[in-house]
Amino acid sequence: MSKSAPRDEGTGYEMRKPAIKDDLVLVSRGTPMGELLRRYWHPVGLIKDANSVPRKVRVLGEDLILFRDGDGRAGLVHARCCHRGTTLYYGKVEQRGLRCCYHGWLFDVHGHCLEQPCEPNGGLFRNKVRQPWYPVQERYGLIFAYLGPPDRKPILPIYECLEVMGDGEFVEADDSSIGGGGPVIIPCNWLQHYENVVDPFHVPVLHASFSGAQFTLAMASMPNVTFESSPRGVVARSTRKTDDGKTFYRVTEAVLPTLRVVPNPRVAQFARVESIGWVLPIDDASFRIYVAGRVKEPGDLGRMRSKFNGKDWSQMTEDEHQRHPGDYEAQVGQGLITMHSEEHFAQSDRGLVILRWMFQEQLARVAQGRDPIGVSFDASTAPIVFEAGNYIRN
Amino acid sequence: MSKSAPRDEGTGYEMRKPAIKDDLVLVSRGTPMGELLRRYWHPVGLIKDANSVPRKVRVLGEDLILFRDGDGRAGLVHARCCHRGTTLYYGKVEQRGLRCCYHGWLFDVHGHCLEQPCEPNGGLFRNKVRQPWYPVQERYGLIFAYLGPPDRKPILPIYECLEVMGDGEFVEADDSSIGGGGPVIIPCNWLQHYENVVDPFHVPVLHASFSGAQFTLAMASMPNVTFESSPRGVVARSTRKTDDGKTFYRVTEAVLPTLRVVPNPRVAQFARVESIGWVLPIDDASFRIYVAGRVKEPGDLGRMRSKFNGKDWSQMTEDEHQRHPGDYEAQVGQGLITMHSEEHFAQSDRGLVILRWMFQEQLARVAQGRDPIGVSFDASTAPIVFEAGNYIRN
Amino acid sequence: MSKSAPRDEGTGYEMRKPAIKDDLVLVSRGTPMGELLRRYWHPVGLIKDANSVPRKVRVLGEDLILFRDGDGRAGLVHARCCHRGTTLYYGKVEQRGLRCCYHGWLFDVHGHCLEQPCEPNGGLFRNKVRQPWYPVQERYGLIFAYLGPPDRKPILPIYECLEVMGDGEFVEADDSSIGGGGPVIIPCNWLQHYENVVDPFHVPVLHASFSGAQFTLAMASMPNVTFESSPRGVVARSTRKTDDGKTFYRVTEAVLPTLRVVPNPRVAQFARVESIGWVLPIDDASFRIYVAGRVKEPGDLGRMRSKFNGKDWSQMTEDEHQRHPGDYEAQVGQGLITMHSEEHFAQSDRGLVILRWMFQEQLARVAQGRDPIGVSFDASTAPIVFEAGNYIRN
Repeated sequence: MSKSAPRDEGTGYEMRKPAIKDDLVLVSRGTPMGELLRRYWHPVGLIKDANSVPRKVRVLGEDLILFRDGDGRAGLVHARCCHRGTTLYYGKVEQRGLRCCYHGWLFDVHGHCLEQPCEPNGGLFRNKVRQPWYPVQERYGLIFAYLGPPDRKPILPIYECLEVMGDGEFVEADDSSIGGGGPVIIPCNWLQHYENVVDPFHVPVLHASFSGAQFTLAMASMPNVTFESSPRGVVARSTRKTDDGKTFYRVTEAVLPTLRVVPNPRVAQFARVESIGWVLPIDDASFRIYVAGRVKEPGDLGRMRSKFNGKDWSQMTEDEHQRHPGDYEAQVGQGLITMHSEEHFAQSDRGLVILRWMFQEQLARVAQGRDPIGVSFDASTAPIVFEAGNYIRN
Repeated sequence: MSKSAPRDEGTGYEMRKPAIKDDLVLVSRGTPMGELLRRYWHPVGLIKDANSVPRKVRVLGEDLILFRDGDGRAGLVHARCCHRGTTLYYGKVEQRGLRCCYHGWLFDVHGHCLEQPCEPNGGLFRNKVRQPWYPVQERYGLIFAYLGPPDRKPILPIYECLEVMGDGEFVEADDSSIGGGGPVIIPCNWLQHYENVVDPFHVPVLHASFSGAQFTLAMASMPNVTFESSPRGVVARSTRKTDDGKTFYRVTEAVLPTLRVVPNPRVAQFARVESIGWVLPIDDASFRIYVAGRVKEPGDLGRMRSKFNGKDWSQMTEDEHQRHPGDYEAQVGQGLITMHSEEHFAQSDRGLVILRWMFQEQLARVAQGRDPIGVSFDASTAPIVFEAGNYIRN
Repeated sequence: MSKSAPRDEGTGYEMRKPAIKDDLVLVSRGTPMGELLRRYWHPVGLIKDANSVPRKVRVLGEDLILFRDGDGRAGLVHARCCHRGTTLYYGKVEQRGLRCCYHGWLFDVHGHCLEQPCEPNGGLFRNKVRQPWYPVQERYGLIFAYLGPPDRKPILPIYECLEVMGDGEFVEADDSSIGGGGPVIIPCNWLQHYENVVDPFHVPVLHASFSGAQFTLAMASMPNVTFESSPRGVVARSTRKTDDGKTFYRVTEAVLPTLRVVPNPRVAQFARVESIGWVLPIDDASFRIYVAGRVKEPGDLGRMRSKFNGKDWSQMTEDEHQRHPGDYEAQVGQGLITMHSEEHFAQSDRGLVILRWMFQEQLARVAQGRDPIGVSFDASTAPIVFEAGNYIRN
């Protein structure tokens, strides 16, 4: 062959077989991250989602049924009846619990079998069976569940930013995946979204030069950012000079394992963070976001959602999505689960490096039989105070 | 951690990895149940389904083509042409057989290659090839096929209940999955439905308190039931006291491997069973039901289908399905293939226990080179008489 | 059992487990055929497909983005950004290249990273990364790409039939899979279609007696055919007697690895071949066809597509497709990937035998570190002249 032409370098032919860091992304029971995530409480619905109609919820790859018995107790049980396996979605909610449609076994919110109407004498051995269930707690408009080992169940944390109200403020909850930039159920791995929380550099690119200034002009310039680990997770502190010579100082936090503590990107006011988002891994390849925040009017949280030319995301055409991408497009565009072997981190990715390092640290702790960061077993633990907020400095 | 709170017991976290009894449910050639099922004749269509238009049928995981040649002989052949593998669905039915669209090879109902028009002299070596085929027989309005080892092909059974007619009665066939409670093709494993046949206890729960009294009031009360194995399968004998002090005595039979011998649940009359349903496993994750029965008017079988507020199943909303589930919801609700490891049988499940035990017994027989229950190689075998029926006793 | 009835022979029960010749059909990098195919240039779009809107293309199982920078250079890059893996489909085309939407890295058509706006000083280490890319060339209205080992990149061949114009002729390109008999993307393995090119015998069956005389009457009779390997691939030479005692002589060629060199089956004139079709394997289970040909009027290529009673393929009903199948039905009817173990070749399949043998020969050459048939590294190589055409002989 002719040797005159230079050999092409860096072509796709030389790529190695791609690989995923399974430890960091998979969420099923028995996987490293699945076990780590199971050491914390996760939101599984709005308080009103638990009612007299059994509701399918999918959490960390588990299919569950949420309901509220006639005594007002919320229950979260394995979807398949422990008798013959049909789904309790077709069950009937009664005063004392949830009754399976097939043979009428009645379970309370702790999975106790109270009745077996097809059995002699109503089931003399019904104490021998138990419908798998999970403990729940209701707070901040949300229902939280604990899917982990019973002897490691921590307290459900209290957050200062949702406890100390300003004038006329109250806490509202939202289940529409605010912050996800797309539909309620987002079809990619949760970590792709969560890493975005410690990535303030993408804002002026994706959310300004690409989408048009999606947020406020104050966010459109490239910030100076420092990243640091905290006792809760990763803190990113950004500074930008303002036109009047002051400093716009913005702090965002990723609080392990899944909390987005991100001040309003529209910077309506300079103040401490007003909401928390919980990224809920539905399974390995989809997630959703629950948010609770201080508001002054019902619906304030929903009004934080971005619009494009007055359109919701679902109203945009494919062409508009291509020309004006947002977080959804950037993160789902990484694939169902991104190929970590193909990544090339730079200095601006330092937040991700710290975040992954902290996750690896927690995986090691759990593997060693220790408790991961941020869990407490002491009911008198003080409310958690975040550093996050938008601030102005002279 | 605090030890004050009691440890939660019976939560989902303690569930073991689920498992399926493959031996009992999988139907492909070479699997234990697949081989057992292949020792019997199965309905694969209505008699009229075999005609001059090739018809796709899927049976026990095999893709086949059903047709009827110009001489009136029904044929059932492997869907892929033995020449180059294109589907004979696009073939043309002729006087002597079915001709492939691609190169015109003509096959008779026994797979003999009669013509090879692209070959020299019409194909001097056409005897060297054979299109895989299966023997069929037509009876009771249905086409039955035998997919098993040729040297174990039994006679096609004759059933007394479809032979001895009452006044004005004739046999009608139906292919719409009567008894399945849903669409024609039901997306779950066949055994989930078949086990329901020996489960009379679910009737007063699922078909009365849940759906409203779907059948007759006589069926709405909890019966006394005895289960027993028979020379054909499993017999369930239910008794209920009637308001006038008599005894309503109902017998249902599961006749191995797939026959539903279930008297009309609407109890139009007290009499021996009037129809047989054959559960046909399409593949591991779907099935359909063929029925043949004695009727007085064409369409009587179809009129046995349940309605809800005058609606067919397909006309009901998702909300109506959730609030008023039936057999379809209960069985498909167990999943594509139920997780047997999660089941907890009780005394009312004794019919299933006997049924599975009988299946295991037949699997062992086949594995030992013996013939399973109910097969006969003697053409003079007497018609099979069932015990099933609705009866009244003083 | 009774031994009176003869044992059924040749039933489907005796079929062996089917198998696929992976070496011949799979197209990913690292597979034998995938590596062979990567020694040649393949069309990946029309010239106009490379423009200022990033375009998804899938070639040999690889997801790529096609674009054209502001300087008019076409680029073809790995779809996932080498930084954090989001798809460059959402990127912005600029003067010097394609900019990722997420963090703004700018890549030129050779994958060089020109800007990293989130990095200090615009990215001092941007030379350390390279976006995987592939070389492209534009010719005959098409964009060709080379996805193989850089040191084995051959010249892009020149074809006489697309260089030497007749009176008023010019070259037109088409991307609608002319010759595939169906939609643009055809859901089966590419080889099922490509083997059809060396199968002239199917024409009088599939395209005449089945579909009605789809082409010209001259094609409806069974030809005499000889098959031969050539320095380019496989040649099929068919002769048919015409009504006026002359000989209709037709030559088709399969030019390795994927060229269809097939004269117009409508035989508008007796002349050398006027077009080339390239079968592009999209992945293992789908392909499309690009065509370039000499025409006199724009749109002439598209007018070659077959119609049925004036209907396009997509306008036909399922019933019409079943009764009047064409190439699409015959080839897709073989399955996503045909089961080679079930084939029975006859004398009329000799073209396929030679074709597969030639492919096996090339696989062996590549495995031995040699170059396969038809590649040249000499830019002064003469245009390739085909034998293909429709001719008339006295």
